[in-house]
Amino acid sequence: MCRFVIYKGTSPVQLSHLLTRPCHSIINQAFDSRLRLDHRRPINGDGFGVGWYDSVHDEELGSQPCIFTSVTPAWNNANLIRLAEKIKSPLVFGHVRATTTGSLSLDNCHPFAYGKLMFMHNGGIAGFHLIKRRLQANLSDDVFNVVQGNTDSECAFALLLSKLPDPKAKSFTTRTLQQAMLDTIATLNVYAEEAGVSEPSLMNFCVTDGESVIATRYISSRHDEAASLWFSSGTTFSEYAPGGHYRMAKADKRENIIMIASEPLTFEKADWMEIRTNNMVVITPKMNLLQIPIVDKFYVSPSDPAARNRDTDFAAAKGLLSPRKALAPVQPRENAPQLSI
Amino acid sequence: MCRFVIYKGTSPVQLSHLLTRPCHSIINQAFDSRLRLDHRRPINGDGFGVGWYDSVHDEELGSQPCIFTSVTPAWNNANLIRLAEKIKSPLVFGHVRATTTGSLSLDNCHPFAYGKLMFMHNGGIAGFHLIKRRLQANLSDDVFNVVQGNTDSECAFALLLSKLPDPKAKSFTTRTLQQAMLDTIATLNVYAEEAGVSEPSLMNFCVTDGESVIATRYISSRHDEAASLWFSSGTTFSEYAPGGHYRMAKADKRENIIMIASEPLTFEKADWMEIRTNNMVVITPKMNLLQIPIVDKFYVSPSDPAARNRDTDFAAAKGLLSPRKALAPVQPRENAPQLSI
Amino acid sequence: MCRFVIYKGTSPVQLSHLLTRPCHSIINQAFDSRLRLDHRRPINGDGFGVGWYDSVHDEELGSQPCIFTSVTPAWNNANLIRLAEKIKSPLVFGHVRATTTGSLSLDNCHPFAYGKLMFMHNGGIAGFHLIKRRLQANLSDDVFNVVQGNTDSECAFALLLSKLPDPKAKSFTTRTLQQAMLDTIATLNVYAEEAGVSEPSLMNFCVTDGESVIATRYISSRHDEAASLWFSSGTTFSEYAPGGHYRMAKADKRENIIMIASEPLTFEKADWMEIRTNNMVVITPKMNLLQIPIVDKFYVSPSDPAARNRDTDFAAAKGLLSPRKALAPVQPRENAPQLSI
Amino acid sequence: MCRFVIYKGTSPVQLSHLLTRPCHSIINQAFDSRLRLDHRRPINGDGFGVGWYDSVHDEELGSQPCIFTSVTPAWNNANLIRLAEKIKSPLVFGHVRATTTGSLSLDNCHPFAYGKLMFMHNGGIAGFHLIKRRLQANLSDDVFNVVQGNTDSECAFALLLSKLPDPKAKSFTTRTLQQAMLDTIATLNVYAEEAGVSEPSLMNFCVTDGESVIATRYISSRHDEAASLWFSSGTTFSEYAPGGHYRMAKADKRENIIMIASEPLTFEKADWMEIRTNNMVVITPKMNLLQIPIVDKFYVSPSDPAARNRDTDFAAAKGLLSPRKALAPVQPRENAPQLSI
Repeated sequence: MCRFVIYKGTSPVQLSHLLTRPCHSIINQAFDSRLRLDHRRPINGDGFGVGWYDSVHDEELGSQPCIFTSVTPAWNNANLIRLAEKIKSPLVFGHVRATTTGSLSLDNCHPFAYGKLMFMHNGGIAGFHLIKRRLQANLSDDVFNVVQGNTDSECAFALLLSKLPDPKAKSFTTRTLQQAMLDTIATLNVYAEEAGVSEPSLMNFCVTDGESVIATRYISSRHDEAASLWFSSGTTFSEYAPGGHYRMAKADKRENIIMIASEPLTFEKADWMEIRTNNMVVITPKMNLLQIPIVDKFYVSPSDPAARNRDTDFAAAKGLLSPRKALAPVQPRENAPQLSI
Repeated sequence: MCRFVIYKGTSPVQLSHLLTRPCHSIINQAFDSRLRLDHRRPINGDGFGVGWYDSVHDEELGSQPCIFTSVTPAWNNANLIRLAEKIKSPLVFGHVRATTTGSLSLDNCHPFAYGKLMFMHNGGIAGFHLIKRRLQANLSDDVFNVVQGNTDSECAFALLLSKLPDPKAKSFTTRTLQQAMLDTIATLNVYAEEAGVSEPSLMNFCVTDGESVIATRYISSRHDEAASLWFSSGTTFSEYAPGGHYRMAKADKRENIIMIASEPLTFEKADWMEIRTNNMVVITPKMNLLQIPIVDKFYVSPSDPAARNRDTDFAAAKGLLSPRKALAPVQPRENAPQLSI
Repeated sequence: MCRFVIYKGTSPVQLSHLLTRPCHSIINQAFDSRLRLDHRRPINGDGFGVGWYDSVHDEELGSQPCIFTSVTPAWNNANLIRLAEKIKSPLVFGHVRATTTGSLSLDNCHPFAYGKLMFMHNGGIAGFHLIKRRLQANLSDDVFNVVQGNTDSECAFALLLSKLPDPKAKSFTTRTLQQAMLDTIATLNVYAEEAGVSEPSLMNFCVTDGESVIATRYISSRHDEAASLWFSSGTTFSEYAPGGHYRMAKADKRENIIMIASEPLTFEKADWMEIRTNNMVVITPKMNLLQIPIVDKFYVSPSDPAARNRDTDFAAAKGLLSPRKALAPVQPRENAPQLSI
Repeated sequence: MCRFVIYKGTSPVQLSHLLTRPCHSIINQAFDSRLRLDHRRPINGDGFGVGWYDSVHDEELGSQPCIFTSVTPAWNNANLIRLAEKIKSPLVFGHVRATTTGSLSLDNCHPFAYGKLMFMHNGGIAGFHLIKRRLQANLSDDVFNVVQGNTDSECAFALLLSKLPDPKAKSFTTRTLQQAMLDTIATLNVYAEEAGVSEPSLMNFCVTDGESVIATRYISSRHDEAASLWFSSGTTFSEYAPGGHYRMAKADKRENIIMIASEPLTFEKADWMEIRTNNMVVITPKMNLLQIPIVDKFYVSPSDPAARNRDTDFAAAKGLLSPRKALAPVQPRENAPQLSI
């Protein structure tokens, strides 16, 4: 299974501080991934991608993301190492691939982009070959022709585009993106059910328009645990000891940096809070962070005694997520943004 | 536009004699292509592929083709150069790509294979984005999932598979493959017409099951010339002068070798005969060669005074392809070349 | 043989305007190269590279160049197309490769970089295998270990580094770089002579430290013509007609942009002046352009009646290079041989 | 660190049974390597290579090995998977890379070949940058120009070539290859000592001429353990349970198959015997297997109480590698395995 990382900051980050220098960056996670569910092939060596928005909004260049992808492993990509030393951006998606479906091809590397939007996925759509035709049939012609590769992930992105009122719009509200994400998951669940797929799908998706970020930690099961997803926030993210040892510092209450990642990017456990299974995380344009339950038939309330198979130490997580910040928000109110951490 | 070459022989050819050593092989045609119609981007540097069947039928290995493809140009591919010195085969497809549609990806490199079948294409399906959905909708589930890349060519192969009674069959008659090819072209013409596509499609297709070979030189127009296609036959194909100067020798009446290629592979013009526009060439398992007109609304009889735009008149001038022969096509005589128009 | 382009401007250029959008950019020259000497393999499809300095000097990022290279052809490189739309730089080197020596490898792609310096080459060192050992033996340990690939070009760069007082210096005078370039050529000539190499070497080299640019058009022969090299200057370089038709505009006497290229990047012939064989072109940090003869035993004065084999219309060139533009800038401020056209 | 596997059989093996199908093949070891010493980057994803000799000696094709290499990871290489199903060979080298020195390039992928010879390396030459110049200086011109990449391993191969009376010979005695291997190691030790390199080098080398195979498990230290190396022999190597579970069967006393590998290729521990540190293993043309101590200043006798840091004591514990056998090494008896220590 894949790994991803999201960075959003009030100031741009030099990509190397996010991607190549930290000793537990997703590139190093590419070969030392400790939390994944899929133990069959424990490497993310099937290509990678990074997408970013410009630091300075440039009328000429526009606000569309730039994407750099490669089919060779991230950890040994000379171009990535050089570019990451030069490029700065306030909003970055990084992704390393371990193929579950889809061949080794640039067309299959995340993030995917369309107009202002950028999307990536960690997980897998169960029984995708059984639902791909129906999914494609429901796309508009424009969106149908967006799909270039052969992954479930890119099709999920196309489906999300089809849930937007206008995927080519110049701006989106946070709410619009949230709703499209929920609709995408709901539709994939309908397709799976009607195709008789019983295996759960892992749908850790994220989408951004360069302003808002929507990420999900989701599994279409009441019993199993979703793929891991964590976040961290603070005022600065910097190297405190040689050898790529980074940490998030919180100088004050301001949230200048928010990161979301498949696994913590640092070994400072206190810096990272786990996102609950079947929740959506939203970063607003003004850097508020919301965690919102995705309440459908696969939702299990944290207070429900029927625990999921892989207990991810909710108690511990609760400890880390201080009551003020963590417990208050996660009372799933539907249709309302919640909990700004 | 692309280039391809087909070799079928009673004895295996070492791939290097076909692909890498001749100074006018398709690899060298990759950068010195003299007859192509598309002058916009006169190089075939967007990857290549070669497919072949085993010399000796091996129960264990089966009779499925082996495919080697690359996204780097053929002329500088160290693996191709080394493999071509070692591999021998009695039936080879070679292809160099110049992208018209489809990204640079192994998934988009010809030849494509399915079970015993191998397919490649030189040309382009006009208005493909307008007919792709309908084409895909008419495929069986199995064949739908065969498609891995994003080219018109691979979709045309999938369509051809769907025209076969059983694309996974262990053997095919020549006639079955011929009919599937004709049905594929006819269906693509219907799709184009109904989608309002007016630009002609270039459909130089070839398919084989390891026994028969069917190739077409076809354009969906009465006025324009199809992409070029030539054939040569003889008893030996070998280097007569240093520097990759090859020629076809005809020691006797036997046809031990038949080659079909987008452009002549040698500078010996007398060795090569042009296949007429909107004709199908068939190599039977017993090495008979038939040329059969594809008579539909785009067919123009050689005797018709309404000449196509670019009349090559090579074969006609030589009297090699006489109208008389065209009328008695599919009755293969063994051990003799058949040029039936 | 390869192609290269150099851009130096008082304002940064968006890379796409230099590399990917012009219909006669070096990427299109990759398959439509009209002026080259080597007709054996008329494509530059063996990889490419682009190097650039930051628009804004950034203390943290430093003033070292960033390099992006690829072994797949430039004209179909999705990453290049995307990056070129985003990156701006006041000093850019671009290079497309057609292998003469050296395998298809990122290590062999130009430009090469070391510290602040960036280097590329169009041509070939004759009999390189005969002089490589001696060349390497004369390098310092540091410079010896710079060489990663197996090309003559990278070794020539290493040799140039060894001619500098301190290749890791934070700044270089234009004069220092000029002298190192002359010493490099002189040393290669000595090596060739002593190794008994009689075939001439083509040494179109260019080097920059991010401030000055030194380029040569040079051949180690009195009789043959060097590989082509042209320059253009003006105030703006922009698209005047759809389809990538660019031209250089000269709004006033200021030289805001200087470009040097293996072939003119536009079809406006009046925009381009040919650099004389066995001359060095220098762009100073303040955007003066000097052309200086490389006077050694291979130098032939323009007034010498013994013309070179391929007469490149020196008279016409003289007409194009008006005194106003040429003489003014070249008022030798730095003790140097001058010759400004 | 890398992984390799050697197969030599009286009958050819289909490459897939060695490389792609076994669930613990070196391709799967590429991401599940349990015995390696270097824990910093536990993946072999930096390219791979396979080299083999023809099953049938073909006068035309000669007896030179064919090499297939790739910079993308072995586990997702469509060409490797397809070729491995078709190619059979009685003598195969397979190698997966994890870079210690050398960039990601086809030039750096093992095995390396020269004439009839094929070579690969698992380990690293300590302080290579300090000895590279001296090593190169001592090569003949021909051998100097063999080196294409920038790895310590390829230079070690060049050094070995320089130790042979005639590296282009049409045949070699087993003894000649053995001596060249010993000389190579001895020379590298001298270079390291004279350059003041104190870190030990890991020199698991193997070389073959298509007839004999020489492999070493060696470290230039009396205290540390060499990189692991194992062998297995038997009459058939086949899948006994679905899912790629292979084992070596010993139907009788004949040794039809000998495999040497960085790690056991099966989970049947009894099938594999560890080669002792600082020993050389020899497979003779007639399939005798010899194990010979490399007795130099880094040799520690198995009876020496001064154990190495990491004593595996696998073979010793089993009594398979008795000291008695070590004393009478290079006298091959036919048709019987020789374990000479």
